[in-house]
Amino acid sequence: MTDVFTLDPRLRADTIEVDRWDLSLVLLMNDANYPWLILVPQRPGLRDIHDLVPPDLLRLSAEIVRASNLLIGLFPEGGKPDKMNVAALGNQVSQLHVHVIARFANDPAWPKPVWGAVPPQPYSEVARGQRLKRLRGR
Amino acid sequence: MTDVFTLDPRLRADTIEVDRWDLSLVLLMNDANYPWLILVPQRPGLRDIHDLVPPDLLRLSAEIVRASNLLIGLFPEGGKPDKMNVAALGNQVSQLHVHVIARFANDPAWPKPVWGAVPPQPYSEVARGQRLKRLRGR
Repeated sequence: MTDVFTLDPRLRADTIEVDRWDLSLVLLMNDANYPWLILVPQRPGLRDIHDLVPPDLLRLSAEIVRASNLLIGLFPEGGKPDKMNVAALGNQVSQLHVHVIARFANDPAWPKPVWGAVPPQPYSEVARGQRLKRLRGR
Repeated sequence: MTDVFTLDPRLRADTIEVDRWDLSLVLLMNDANYPWLILVPQRPGLRDIHDLVPPDLLRLSAEIVRASNLLIGLFPEGGKPDKMNVAALGNQVSQLHVHVIARFANDPAWPKPVWGAVPPQPYSEVARGQRLKRLRGR
């Protein structure tokens, strides 16, 4: 266990930084197939949700809801996501990170989980810029 | 939205009831491939984590940690799980339910997520009885 938070290089390679919240580094998965955020609690040495101290567990819960609502807010009434998928898996990257993914009944993996379903489709520069602007609220 | 909590029939068919906690109905997935609990908040009409009122969000967080520790406690020192997978997906069964799954580097799906990886392997009557006894602490 290290005593300084550093982002796993694989998470860094697959994502774009959106914001830094009270607990979590907020990342956008660079996959235009799904509106997909990843929350990484900025604490050293975490692997699992049960590793969080209780105040951070509360922060993470609140930030999961905040991330869900942020993704839902990208879409107009009538075009809202059909389901939110929230998951801390980490079998490949052991650093604790939580996926928050807006799912639609017409997305390429539905109704299966997204992992491994279809190859990632990186954002175009324009689409990435637009999405980040909306997510950052500016 | 109904005003009484009832368990989705598909969740009922795939699981065995273990316990009832403050918020969640605690179910054992009938799949001996993985030590796998499902928490179902006993509130009517919930689909997503962000549907929970704040006090229930806190309860659910604490119960996820409790379920994780319960699964970890099934295994002796030296045989502990390699990772816990915690996920609220619900693309097939929309009722809010949270998977808590103990993962091992030698389990049949590792390092992939468990869903759809290999066919479920129902517990034998003896193995199911032993697991339930340990999970119920009696």
